Amino acid sequence: MSCRIGIDFGGTNIAVGLVDEHYAVLAKSSLPTGKGKRSTDEMVLDMAVLCKKVCEMAGVSLADTESIGIATPGTVNSALGVVIDYPGMGLSNYPMAKKLSDALSGYDAGKIRIANDANAAALGEAVAGAAKGARTALVITLGTGVGGGIILDGKIYDGFNFSAGELGHTVIVKDGHPCACGRKGCFEQYASASALVRMTKEEMERSPASKMWEFSPTLDDVNGKTSFEAAKLGDAAAQKVVDLYIGYLACGVANMMNIFQPEVLCIGGGICGQGDNLLKPLSELVFAEQYAKTSPEKTKLVIATLGNDAGIVGAAAL
Amino acid sequence: MSCRIGIDFGGTNIAVGLVDEHYAVLAKSSLPTGKGKRSTDEMVLDMAVLCKKVCEMAGVSLADTESIGIATPGTVNSALGVVIDYPGMGLSNYPMAKKLSDALSGYDAGKIRIANDANAAALGEAVAGAAKGARTALVITLGTGVGGGIILDGKIYDGFNFSAGELGHTVIVKDGHPCACGRKGCFEQYASASALVRMTKEEMERSPASKMWEFSPTLDDVNGKTSFEAAKLGDAAAQKVVDLYIGYLACGVANMMNIFQPEVLCIGGGICGQGDNLLKPLSELVFAEQYAKTSPEKTKLVIATLGNDAGIVGAAAL
Repeated sequence: MSCRIGIDFGGTNIAVGLVDEHYAVLAKSSLPTGKGKRSTDEMVLDMAVLCKKVCEMAGVSLADTESIGIATPGTVNSALGVVIDYPGMGLSNYPMAKKLSDALSGYDAGKIRIANDANAAALGEAVAGAAKGARTALVITLGTGVGGGIILDGKIYDGFNFSAGELGHTVIVKDGHPCACGRKGCFEQYASASALVRMTKEEMERSPASKMWEFSPTLDDVNGKTSFEAAKLGDAAAQKVVDLYIGYLACGVANMMNIFQPEVLCIGGGICGQGDNLLKPLSELVFAEQYAKTSPEKTKLVIATLGNDAGIVGAAAL
Repeated sequence: MSCRIGIDFGGTNIAVGLVDEHYAVLAKSSLPTGKGKRSTDEMVLDMAVLCKKVCEMAGVSLADTESIGIATPGTVNSALGVVIDYPGMGLSNYPMAKKLSDALSGYDAGKIRIANDANAAALGEAVAGAAKGARTALVITLGTGVGGGIILDGKIYDGFNFSAGELGHTVIVKDGHPCACGRKGCFEQYASASALVRMTKEEMERSPASKMWEFSPTLDDVNGKTSFEAAKLGDAAAQKVVDLYIGYLACGVANMMNIFQPEVLCIGGGICGQGDNLLKPLSELVFAEQYAKTSPEKTKLVIATLGNDAGIVGAAAL
């Protein structure tokens, strides 16, 4: 049996998994990241502890694993195994692969790979999730922001400077909502879960009789489900929010389809829990807008299936 | 000497060139396309005539040429040498490579390649023009529309269904100007030469004292140069048009940079004749907006250099 280790270096937890040759997770364990409370070197030591632990759990020798992959936030030089830039943790040119190799004394540094977390999650979906088997796939993840991963010819595409794939930072409303990136009107400002929450609150303030208030008694209770749940009960104001949000999402998704024409375009993130309530109206809008309307072969628009394991699986696939 | 033939199958002319191993054009000749007046088969016969002619002109035997490439409008299955769809000429699944091989009886069909014209022009810039040597390059051509070509790892990227690269049909102003593609607010509606002409006319109507009227005495005389030329003389209304246009162009260019982080991003089309009057303010806006602001390696933003030869050179490079 050929096993690989995937490490998802998240802001809250360090999650490590051992996967088999079909990317089935055989063992999984995690520790809190402790962001802001300790050094990155200490976090890497915990990665090493977890690598050994998942091997023990599955009865596999660490030395027999084929590779270790790390999915980390920030800009990553995958060729050198270095985190070039991760301002959230104050990292700059941090040799993460080398550090983990040292922490696992004796583990071949050449077998430790590293990638940006959004890119790794996209690779995960492409090797074992909703885009399985696709040589060309895009993954758009709707969370606090809008993350993007581009898989071309089965591999992560990250541009000549490892910074490509910022699909969320493409303007769809010129001079629109200000974005943290400095631009105005980014896709992320209209299609992220945070954007949906903003739109929901705005509509609730205009609609005191809306059923959305039953799901979220105060504006602080609003989340990505509020509008979708109330809309299911026939609430017009909630439906307005859902339609508005899906309209913006479709705009950005159709943009990416016209650029890439990928075999599969996969939508991830918590909002995907809405299933067909999201996917059906989204597909209708996207396919009405896409340029290759007459093409006999059309991109498959799907919902991500790996959930929280996408990072581990993608890292293992590096 | 290793020679190749490139055919630019345009709406007005069929232009054929013989290039050497450095993509220098050794001989070039053309015939009117005769669009709407004759069959595509007849046009292909003229391609064959021109192939023989350029070989004669350069004293090269047709049989000794390494390959023939055709750059054609429409959606092209480059693997099969077939034009899948070119509504402008009523073509559907037209086996162009095979037809040319028949017209050049004895020329190996396996040596005849075919690509979409915007993609071929992008490849031309990447092998011998402004993006020479770049493994990853984008070419955005500002003409009647906004054309796009994506070169990844030295090759044309056209997606799994040969329809990728429609960079002009990405919405930057949601619910904005209607586009022929059916969407509203496409990049093409704000950054094409046609869009610049529209903006110029609108401002001229508001500004009867503008120097733009000296360059274009009636609205029918307005072209892509009107605003730029009057702005050079310090005309405020003209400068307003130039700033507006470059602002939209920068928006779409920054979008593509954030997605691809190509080594080189090349702008083509007639408006590029403005040189630094276009490139300097455009660069300032794009680099202020781009996500990888802190990256030590930044995309080079340049102006196309091959002009009308891009199609021939790119076709020859297929």
